[in-house]
Amino acid sequence: MYPEVRRVYMSEKMSEKQEWQALLDQFISHAGEEGLFELETNIADDPVTYCRRELGHPIGELTELEKVFVSVDIPEFPLNVDSYARYLSEDILNHVVPVSSPAFVGHMTSALPKHLPALGKVLTALNQNLVKLETSHILTALERQVLGMMHKLVYHRDEDFYQQWLHNGEHALATFCSGGTLANLTAMWACRNQLMPADGDFAGLAREGLARGLLHYGYRGLAILVSEQGHYSLKKTVDVLGLGQDALVKVETDREGRICIDALLAQLQTLRQRNIKPMAIVGIAGSTETGAIDPLNRLADIAEQEQCYFHVDAAWGGASLMSERYRHLFAGIERADTVTIDAHKQMYVPMGSGMVLFRQPTLTNAIAQHANYIVRKGSKDLGRHTLEGSRSAMSLMLHSNFYLLGRRGLASLIEASIEKAQQFADLIHQQEDFELISEPQLCLLTYRYVPPTVLSALREGSASVRQQLHELLNALNQSIQTSQWTAGKSFVSRTHLKPVQWDRQPTTVLRVVLANPLTTLEILENMLEEQRQLARQSPFWQTLQDLVGD
Amino acid sequence: MYPEVRRVYMSEKMSEKQEWQALLDQFISHAGEEGLFELETNIADDPVTYCRRELGHPIGELTELEKVFVSVDIPEFPLNVDSYARYLSEDILNHVVPVSSPAFVGHMTSALPKHLPALGKVLTALNQNLVKLETSHILTALERQVLGMMHKLVYHRDEDFYQQWLHNGEHALATFCSGGTLANLTAMWACRNQLMPADGDFAGLAREGLARGLLHYGYRGLAILVSEQGHYSLKKTVDVLGLGQDALVKVETDREGRICIDALLAQLQTLRQRNIKPMAIVGIAGSTETGAIDPLNRLADIAEQEQCYFHVDAAWGGASLMSERYRHLFAGIERADTVTIDAHKQMYVPMGSGMVLFRQPTLTNAIAQHANYIVRKGSKDLGRHTLEGSRSAMSLMLHSNFYLLGRRGLASLIEASIEKAQQFADLIHQQEDFELISEPQLCLLTYRYVPPTVLSALREGSASVRQQLHELLNALNQSIQTSQWTAGKSFVSRTHLKPVQWDRQPTTVLRVVLANPLTTLEILENMLEEQRQLARQSPFWQTLQDLVGD
Repeated sequence: MYPEVRRVYMSEKMSEKQEWQALLDQFISHAGEEGLFELETNIADDPVTYCRRELGHPIGELTELEKVFVSVDIPEFPLNVDSYARYLSEDILNHVVPVSSPAFVGHMTSALPKHLPALGKVLTALNQNLVKLETSHILTALERQVLGMMHKLVYHRDEDFYQQWLHNGEHALATFCSGGTLANLTAMWACRNQLMPADGDFAGLAREGLARGLLHYGYRGLAILVSEQGHYSLKKTVDVLGLGQDALVKVETDREGRICIDALLAQLQTLRQRNIKPMAIVGIAGSTETGAIDPLNRLADIAEQEQCYFHVDAAWGGASLMSERYRHLFAGIERADTVTIDAHKQMYVPMGSGMVLFRQPTLTNAIAQHANYIVRKGSKDLGRHTLEGSRSAMSLMLHSNFYLLGRRGLASLIEASIEKAQQFADLIHQQEDFELISEPQLCLLTYRYVPPTVLSALREGSASVRQQLHELLNALNQSIQTSQWTAGKSFVSRTHLKPVQWDRQPTTVLRVVLANPLTTLEILENMLEEQRQLARQSPFWQTLQDLVGD
Repeated sequence: MYPEVRRVYMSEKMSEKQEWQALLDQFISHAGEEGLFELETNIADDPVTYCRRELGHPIGELTELEKVFVSVDIPEFPLNVDSYARYLSEDILNHVVPVSSPAFVGHMTSALPKHLPALGKVLTALNQNLVKLETSHILTALERQVLGMMHKLVYHRDEDFYQQWLHNGEHALATFCSGGTLANLTAMWACRNQLMPADGDFAGLAREGLARGLLHYGYRGLAILVSEQGHYSLKKTVDVLGLGQDALVKVETDREGRICIDALLAQLQTLRQRNIKPMAIVGIAGSTETGAIDPLNRLADIAEQEQCYFHVDAAWGGASLMSERYRHLFAGIERADTVTIDAHKQMYVPMGSGMVLFRQPTLTNAIAQHANYIVRKGSKDLGRHTLEGSRSAMSLMLHSNFYLLGRRGLASLIEASIEKAQQFADLIHQQEDFELISEPQLCLLTYRYVPPTVLSALREGSASVRQQLHELLNALNQSIQTSQWTAGKSFVSRTHLKPVQWDRQPTTVLRVVLANPLTTLEILENMLEEQRQLARQSPFWQTLQDLVGD
């Protein structure tokens, strides 16, 4: 649907020359951009208020909103900027999710520091392409520095090491990519290729492919092992890499959501019997579902024994390495061959800043590429070691946070978040109708709503009643989460866990990530109250009450 | 290196509480951001002048610039915004490559319409994550519409088709990704999986992997066929997918750089004899090196006969479909199973806007994913069909170009570019010391500098002299390109071709892409004059003259 005022600046009545002139004017001039300037200024000033300026209005039903977006014809004649800005402002951006609201605590996107929108504008205007020097030049050097800082954060190698590798174009300490999924894929791609190098008449997996590699090295298959809390990107990874989803071996977790070492050893034993080579063990350092951190040193030992790669998925948790107070939770990460960290999670930069770090920069040889017109051999083009080709200078965003928040500032944000999660856990414990399902690990926790009478019945009722209650509770919590989202004032996410304390029954839980420094305990208290109200309005409330005889 | 004025806002003397307050102030307030505002405004106003405000200064040597970026320690104490803005402005951004300069015609990044930097700011501030509805909501619907417009541009299916599929969350007409590399990878991932579906006791390639799939279906291997002008991302694709780089079969091209059909048929024959299944034939619609467009209808016929997939890489060229005048060059693209188009090339949006389109939306079943806390089954989360996970709302950039330039405006830009390339080709023909190597196809052409005496000698000299001359000319043109880049006033790229007219000898050529509407013929004339001067200053100039006896 077009904006109501269809002000076009080009029309059928114009000659071709007039049209061209009007187009060029639009292309190069700022005329008539007052509307857009107002829009960008207002949004950057206070995105939350902007998104929710019709506060109290619930989030629009998607099926309703979709009705505005049904035309598949590119508009023939263009609008002028003011009309478009009004269209954006009145019909689209006021329905956007206020992800930076301190009451939206269900996802990993927090509020961002106020200097970043301006940098977003700068990056768009400069439109550098980091794939090669010719379109990025000095920002190539800057990106290598930022990656060096990240490498040191994880591996803290000595000065000589960084002097040798930091600006060495033949290899990479780390590479940027759009996000954790590509980071995990890149890491596993490098490990897979390196696992089956050229040997005798075999030209290597990268050249001859996986099937030939398995044949040459005498394996029936490859496997990647990770706890059942492994991110779904790993399932994509084994699929894309040609190993097949069955090659992702999921290992049971303990009460805290960490990988069970005995179960891992048993799985490795089974793989050995089936002549399947464990290609990599993946440790999770801050799981998406509960924030759990695997025992990384123990995993590193096992990977060493098995002579397989050790990858750590610290996409979300890795930022916590900046805190001297909590860094010890990650002991052993420095032994990982590859590590994934997303700066757009707890490093407070916008979407699109994934990274994979390589302990040995030479591992990137396994995935190095070149082409004549681009990423030439011997050049310092960053594109030689990235999965992606053309790519923007997101590293500048991270650079700005390093310089404007500092290691100390970032650490304070992390620490405040973790402590807030502990306080929120205490608050939940104090409620008689909420149950903490997973203790806070880093700044993430899960809980659910359980009326006290139901809780007693759950513990004491017959098996069949317990089963019914369990399912109704799942439905109730799902409905709380959905109606809270629809109401539009606050947000938690939900997932299914198999908590040890509930005999590993699939349990719907509310999930909270407290990374936003502007989230206060008061906001969280109000949210619990809101959830309590929503529970009572839920269609499952009465059914539950009837069942426990209230 | 730090900016000279190290103004920090946090210090060792502060208490923890004071530090926290200072940090929060920095995080949420705009205090002291005048410097940054000046920076963003100046750059967005006129990025070219900004980047080259020390005009006349050559581009800095990278090894010199790197000396500024040697510390791998994240700064402990943070700077205030003004100091950082000054640092950026004085030490970094004035060395950035002015990719939007009308004299920088060597790459595919042109000037951008003036409204985009503001949108870059808006997108950064809103920080939506398109992986799932909960963090993108209305923009999910908007993205589907934009993808629908792209789908119709390529496949022009009827109204019923789009009514059925546009907002159908179970499938996707197309998906956004960071660029052409991921688009090609996504397309080939879907085709590979779809080629070997579940069958009897075989659970399908996606589940059981490539090696098991080959065994089950009785192939020795898979292959992807493309002309020797295929983009290097296809080599990454076959590597990542586990087929191995040898599985990318490169087919000879004709004088115009288009795939030779006879050579393709011969290659298919060879594969058949080796029991290697052709998985896909890739047609190029606008090659990166010469802009060549393969005979797509012919390729579609052959793919049909071979019962293999037909993919078209139109990353750069696809935008030309918007021109009614040149659309016919792409006849047959609507028969492709999958098509890659980058909006950040000739659709004039910033880096990070790749797309893969699917003729049959159900093809995306082959790569569909889900997870409990995200991209749930039955949801309309876009992340179910994308290779990437978290992802920004780049589709809004393309939306804005569709509405602010219109189909007609975008078509005019494309047409003006193509006609400018034809005029530049004429201009080169008129010079006695330049040689057009590949005729303009779309708005891309290649040429080289050849002094007239050398040209005669090349045609008439002895074989050994010709060989020497050929090599010296390559060196000369390489040195022209490099010194032009270093001088910093204008830019062409270079590549190696094997032109039919020069017996397919590897020939270094200068490559020009004329997508910037602000590039004039006068600028191009001046550039030829500059190249002529640089040729005379080249160390290879005299050697060449000596050899031809001038």
